[in-house]
Amino acid sequence: MPDSMKSTLRTMGENARTAARLIGRAETGAKNQALLAIAAALEASASILISENQRDLEAGRQNHIDSAMLERLELTLARINAMADGVRQVAALPDPVGEITHLTYRPSGIQVGKMRVPLGVVGIIYESRPNVTADAAALCLKSGNACILRGGSESIHSNQAIADCIRFGLKSVGLPADAVQLIPTTDRAAVGELLQLDNFIDVIVPRGGKGLIERIMAESRIPVIKHLDGICHVYIDDHCDLEKAQRIAINAKTQRYGVCNAMETLLVARRIAPIVLPELAKQLIEKGVELRGCPKTREIVPEASAATQEDWDTEYLAPILSVRVVADMDEAMDHIHQHSSGHTESIVTEDYSRARRFLREVDSSSVMVNASTRFADGFEYGLGAEIGISTDKLHARGPVGLEGLTSQKFVVLGDGHIRS
Amino acid sequence: MPDSMKSTLRTMGENARTAARLIGRAETGAKNQALLAIAAALEASASILISENQRDLEAGRQNHIDSAMLERLELTLARINAMADGVRQVAALPDPVGEITHLTYRPSGIQVGKMRVPLGVVGIIYESRPNVTADAAALCLKSGNACILRGGSESIHSNQAIADCIRFGLKSVGLPADAVQLIPTTDRAAVGELLQLDNFIDVIVPRGGKGLIERIMAESRIPVIKHLDGICHVYIDDHCDLEKAQRIAINAKTQRYGVCNAMETLLVARRIAPIVLPELAKQLIEKGVELRGCPKTREIVPEASAATQEDWDTEYLAPILSVRVVADMDEAMDHIHQHSSGHTESIVTEDYSRARRFLREVDSSSVMVNASTRFADGFEYGLGAEIGISTDKLHARGPVGLEGLTSQKFVVLGDGHIRS
Repeated sequence: MPDSMKSTLRTMGENARTAARLIGRAETGAKNQALLAIAAALEASASILISENQRDLEAGRQNHIDSAMLERLELTLARINAMADGVRQVAALPDPVGEITHLTYRPSGIQVGKMRVPLGVVGIIYESRPNVTADAAALCLKSGNACILRGGSESIHSNQAIADCIRFGLKSVGLPADAVQLIPTTDRAAVGELLQLDNFIDVIVPRGGKGLIERIMAESRIPVIKHLDGICHVYIDDHCDLEKAQRIAINAKTQRYGVCNAMETLLVARRIAPIVLPELAKQLIEKGVELRGCPKTREIVPEASAATQEDWDTEYLAPILSVRVVADMDEAMDHIHQHSSGHTESIVTEDYSRARRFLREVDSSSVMVNASTRFADGFEYGLGAEIGISTDKLHARGPVGLEGLTSQKFVVLGDGHIRS
Repeated sequence: MPDSMKSTLRTMGENARTAARLIGRAETGAKNQALLAIAAALEASASILISENQRDLEAGRQNHIDSAMLERLELTLARINAMADGVRQVAALPDPVGEITHLTYRPSGIQVGKMRVPLGVVGIIYESRPNVTADAAALCLKSGNACILRGGSESIHSNQAIADCIRFGLKSVGLPADAVQLIPTTDRAAVGELLQLDNFIDVIVPRGGKGLIERIMAESRIPVIKHLDGICHVYIDDHCDLEKAQRIAINAKTQRYGVCNAMETLLVARRIAPIVLPELAKQLIEKGVELRGCPKTREIVPEASAATQEDWDTEYLAPILSVRVVADMDEAMDHIHQHSSGHTESIVTEDYSRARRFLREVDSSSVMVNASTRFADGFEYGLGAEIGISTDKLHARGPVGLEGLTSQKFVVLGDGHIRS
C-alpha cells in the first residue's frame, strides 16, 4: 500500500468530518436548493455524462464483463433524467433533521425530548451502477450527513462525472463540496484504507455481496448497516383465501427474480396443500420456475425435484423455488426461525388470531399478512427512497431511508434547574 | 482455554437463543408477574443473599480490594429491599414490545407500520455491584430479551444467589429460567468466549471502563452499546442569568464527583468571565474543588493552576475542574466539538437564538439549556431505569432504558395485495 493512498484517504476523512458539521446544521431550504441544483447539473451535463460513461462501457467490453453488468452500467438520456428526478424526489421529502419528539415535563421541572440528528459521515461501498452515486449522495445530503462514496471500479468515469455535478450543486448554494466525496481511484487497496478511518466515518453501508460485508466486519471497527441474504418465505395457512394465496405466491416469486425480497421458499399447511399446490405448481412451471420440494410436496407435485437440506438455506435469486409442506403455522414459524435470513416473511391467512401471532412472533425485518414479499422496499413503504435494506437488529431494520441515516439525541430545557 | 469452558459458554448461548424466542413472545402480564415474583424472592432470600455476600466481602478483604469497592459490593437488608423495589418499578413500566406505530395506508393499498420488538439476546458485562444483576435482568426481561450476565468476579457468590432468585421467579410463572443466565465462573477466559458468541448474542452492553470496551471492539464481532468517557461541558454565555449560572455550575461539578454526567470543563464567555468567575471560583474552592484554568481564567482566578492541553481531554471523576474563557458561543462549540466525549453539554443563556443554535449544533447524546448536566440519567429522563448511557451514534444514544433494548421491524397488512 503506497503511503500516498493512506494519506489521500485520511485527508478525505478529515474533510468529510469538517463538511459533516456544516451540512449537519444546514437549513432545510439550503439542502433542498442544493438537491435541485444537482438535478439541474446532471441534466445539463448529459452529454459529458454519456461520453464519460462510454469510456467505462468500452473498458468493460474489453475486460469482457457480462452483458447484465454492462446493462446496469450504461447511462442513457432517459436514465440521466430519471436520476435527476430521483434527486428532486429526495428534495421533496420532509427533512428528518432537527425534529423534536416526546418533549415532556418531568417531575423535576425540566423538559426532556429527543431531537433527530445526522449520523455524521457515511461511507458507502456500492456496485457498478452509476445512478447509485446520485441516489446515495442525495439521501446523505438531505439527512445532513457527509458521505464518502466508493463505487464499483467499472463505473469510475461515470461516477466521477456524476460526483462533479453533485459537488458543483453543493458549491452553487454555498454548501461544502466535501459533503460528497468520491474515492478517485479504482485501486482495491483504497477500500482497505477506508475501513481504517474509524475516527472519521460513523457508519458504512455496503451494497455489495456477502463477501464484502464479511470483509468489512473482519477488517473494520466502523459500524455497518448490513444487508445480508434475502431468504424470504411465504406461508400459506390452511385457513386462507385460495385466490389470494395463488396471487401472492406467484407475485412474490415471479414478479422479479434477482431481487432480495423475492420469495425463495414456500411453506404450505398440510391440510390445504393438496388443494392449493397443484394449480399453483402448474402456474409456476408455466412461468419457467423450477420447483424443489420436500417429500410431501413431491407426492402432490411430481414435477418437483427433491429439495436438499441446502435448498432451505439458499437465496436463489433465480426462477427456482423450494416448497415444503408443514403441519401448521407453528411448524412454519419454526422453519422460518431456523432458515430465514431475517429479511421478509408473509403469511396468507384469513384467521385473525394466527395473523396476530405471526406478526408478533416472526423475527424478520418485514413481517406481512396477505401481501407479497415484493413490497419490502423503501418506495413502497413510503420512505421516499432507500439506501439499502438492513437485516440487522440494531439501529435500522428493513428498508433504510432518510430516517435510518439519522439518530436521536436527548434535549433538555430548564430554567436554572439543578439536581437535588 | 479448556474446551469445557468453550462448550459451557456455547451451551449458554444456545439456551439463551431458545429462551429469547419464548420471552420475546411472552405477554406483558406474564413478564410483570415474573418481575413481581423475582422481587418477592429477593426479599424472602435476604438472609441467604447476605450470607453469600459475606463470602464475597471476606474474599475481597483478603485480596485487599479497596474500601470503595467493598462498599459497592456490600449487600444490606436495605439494599436488598431497594433492589426488589427497583424490580417492581420495572414491572410498573409500560411494555415497549409489540407497540405498533405509524401504521398508514400506502397508495398500493397495503398498510405499513413499525412494530417494536426485542433485540434477542443481550450480553452484559458489569462491575462488582450485585444490584446490577437484578437491575439488568429486570430490564432485559421486561423488554422481552434473554440475557447472559457476567458480573465482576469479586461479587460472584452474591450474583449467583441473586440469579437464583431471578430464575426461580421466571420458572414460577412458567417463563424459561434460561432467559437470565449468569456465567458461573470468575475465570477471565470466559469473557473471551462470550465475545465469540456472535451467533447467539445480539448486542453486548459493557459497563466496565474504556479498556473493557476497547477489548470488546477488538475481539468481538458482536455490536456493542458503548459508554465511553463523560467529558461534559457547561458553557456560561455572556447573556445569562448569573444566579442560574452559579447554581448550575456548582451542581454540575459538585453534586457528585465520580459520575459520568458531572461537568469536567467549564467554558465562560469572555465578556462575562470577570463577573461570574470570582464568586463561582470561591464557592468551588470552598467545596474543595481544584481549579485548572487557561491563562485568561488565571488572570481572573489566581488560585487556579495552569491547565495543560491534556486537561481538556480528561474525565477527572474527581473534585477537579478545568476552566476556559472563550470569545463567544462559537468558540465554546468549537471547543466542545474538539474535546467532548459526546456525552452531555449544557449552555447557560437567556438568549433565545443562541439556545436554539446550541441545541441543534452540539453533537452530544444530551444537549441542555439552563440545566445541570447531572440530569443526564435514565430515571431523570423518565425512562424508568437505565442499563447504561450510550455515547454511540447508531441505535441508542444517551441513557438506554427499555426502548434502547428493542428495535423496530416493519409490519405490512394486505388483503391479497401484490406488487405490479
